[in-house]
Amino acid sequence: MDEFASIHHWTGARQSAEWQQRRGVVLGIGDDTAIVDVGLAEEGVAAPKRMLLAVDTMVETVHFNDATMREEDIGYKALAANVSDIAAMGGVPLHALVSVSVPRAWGPERMRRLYDGLYACAERYGVAVIGGDTTSSPEHLVIAVTVTGTVEAALALRRSSAMPGDAVFVTGAVGMAAAGLHALLAQRVDGAAEAAHPIIVQAHRRPAPSVRAGRLLAAHGLGCHALNDVSDGLASEAWEIAEASGVRVVLHETELPRSGSMAAYASETGMDPLEWMLYGGEDYALLGTIDKTSVIAALELFRKEGIPFFLIGEIEAGDAAVELVRARAAGVSHSGKQEKRVQLAKRGYNHFKR
Amino acid sequence: MDEFASIHHWTGARQSAEWQQRRGVVLGIGDDTAIVDVGLAEEGVAAPKRMLLAVDTMVETVHFNDATMREEDIGYKALAANVSDIAAMGGVPLHALVSVSVPRAWGPERMRRLYDGLYACAERYGVAVIGGDTTSSPEHLVIAVTVTGTVEAALALRRSSAMPGDAVFVTGAVGMAAAGLHALLAQRVDGAAEAAHPIIVQAHRRPAPSVRAGRLLAAHGLGCHALNDVSDGLASEAWEIAEASGVRVVLHETELPRSGSMAAYASETGMDPLEWMLYGGEDYALLGTIDKTSVIAALELFRKEGIPFFLIGEIEAGDAAVELVRARAAGVSHSGKQEKRVQLAKRGYNHFKR
Repeated sequence: MDEFASIHHWTGARQSAEWQQRRGVVLGIGDDTAIVDVGLAEEGVAAPKRMLLAVDTMVETVHFNDATMREEDIGYKALAANVSDIAAMGGVPLHALVSVSVPRAWGPERMRRLYDGLYACAERYGVAVIGGDTTSSPEHLVIAVTVTGTVEAALALRRSSAMPGDAVFVTGAVGMAAAGLHALLAQRVDGAAEAAHPIIVQAHRRPAPSVRAGRLLAAHGLGCHALNDVSDGLASEAWEIAEASGVRVVLHETELPRSGSMAAYASETGMDPLEWMLYGGEDYALLGTIDKTSVIAALELFRKEGIPFFLIGEIEAGDAAVELVRARAAGVSHSGKQEKRVQLAKRGYNHFKR
Repeated sequence: MDEFASIHHWTGARQSAEWQQRRGVVLGIGDDTAIVDVGLAEEGVAAPKRMLLAVDTMVETVHFNDATMREEDIGYKALAANVSDIAAMGGVPLHALVSVSVPRAWGPERMRRLYDGLYACAERYGVAVIGGDTTSSPEHLVIAVTVTGTVEAALALRRSSAMPGDAVFVTGAVGMAAAGLHALLAQRVDGAAEAAHPIIVQAHRRPAPSVRAGRLLAAHGLGCHALNDVSDGLASEAWEIAEASGVRVVLHETELPRSGSMAAYASETGMDPLEWMLYGGEDYALLGTIDKTSVIAALELFRKEGIPFFLIGEIEAGDAAVELVRARAAGVSHSGKQEKRVQLAKRGYNHFKR
């Protein structure tokens, strides 16, 4: 069972929508964050904002080890992954609670460095650390961070709102973090990967959540329909939008934004960059769909703000699926044009198990 | 370093009070829950309620193992521990997010049973499960649950508000969960402890957070000053109130509420029940202080509602300390009365490491 099937098996149909609604739940399990209306406003007054809540966990040997991440990076990334979920709803991150389970091998000074990184990320994104729980752990460090955020009541960007005819965009290059992880796992000497490939290694260790991009996309009238962060890889996130919205997502290989550092590293090592771009996760750019009539306005707005914005495909009516139009025409399609479409696998990003 | 010293070393003085206030933080790290004012009300309108947030973690081999807890109990208790933190602020629990790190040995059916227990607790306390994160784990199950709740803005019950002259109370018997854990660890055959000592075993496996008691205590005019749940043991929680409030907490051995099942089990096994009552944790009764003039009203209100309420001591001015007036006079005190006061150790509850 994959993660989604498991979660459905464990949590599906346990609490009715009505029961949850009476407790202020606007959106429960299944998107980047939950949305709640906690009734903090005066009785009878509609709250102008809603609260976002998400949790994300990193486990030693599953998500990181001594070779791939320094203590500071672990703390930074544990919070950044959560901030990215808030960004993917178009929200503003506010607070964090930190649960750490600490093995004996992690003395106070290593933990101190982990918190150095976590607080650096908190400062960068304006997140107040307001609580936590510390337990011991028999062997491996586990860190679970919960974040809150707020978003204007009308503006939360769900993954289920893509419409046929929409353009598909992404707000940054993809595959860099996966290439960085590859370089870190391949290095024979500590620090060698960072020295030789600083940009992709940084992309893996210190991802940059797209909060500003999310806020632009949530702005009234921009016509953004669906939004996800690329934490589990482009193909996997596109599948989530396709299935949640009941549409076909078509991506164009030639339009996918690729970083020079990633391409150079792929060529140097003989690896396939497309694999990283489609199935490598943790890039934390935003993947979304936008009304065709809003594309020009969005391009101009993002250029003005200095934030990348790449058009990479479109939404078609049809059964939920994700298709890639290949770069090199290997045949003639039924429409007579020289293109080849392949369906992308639904598989996500499995860190060390690939 | 103990947990509090570690947390202070890692998180102390990282973010200024002003910086956190600008992000809606009313109370940060250091109490049962954080309190936030997330500005969901209309601009310029004071929100009548505030939000509470807490996280609690359980780790296999540290907090439970196959001999002590069934899968359903683990799920139940993981949520109950958090609900108890909301109760200790006088709040109403609302939502939960669940992070689980799952080792291979935990197949889908064991996890399903864990969630059966978690949702049973959620239904019991009206908590909507709104999100989570599932990761794999190399060896041990780790479950971290975050809860939200709300409380009227003026009423949150902090542990720093005890006043000299206050009476000290507890809302249930103490030491039962620790006795139950002892019975479970001593059993030679699975199920033997439960058959022989069902009440104390149930107290360990399915603690009952005191949400109703917390709501009564938070009610206007009842005069409750400080409040904690007894999750880390009576002595440890009394020390937290003493240090946070800058007062001396005096407890009377003869007034401590003891359950018949716990006392019988202690006598049967030759164990000291006072050790469990003072240093055994996870009872989830509430320990608090109340204005002396409100004691009669509180006693009547709790009796009417059918909730236990035991007066067990008083608050004195002086350096932060917790003292126990022993039952048997072993000497004559300076005041000439036959009593002996001993200072209680600050140590908390360490599950399997005692």
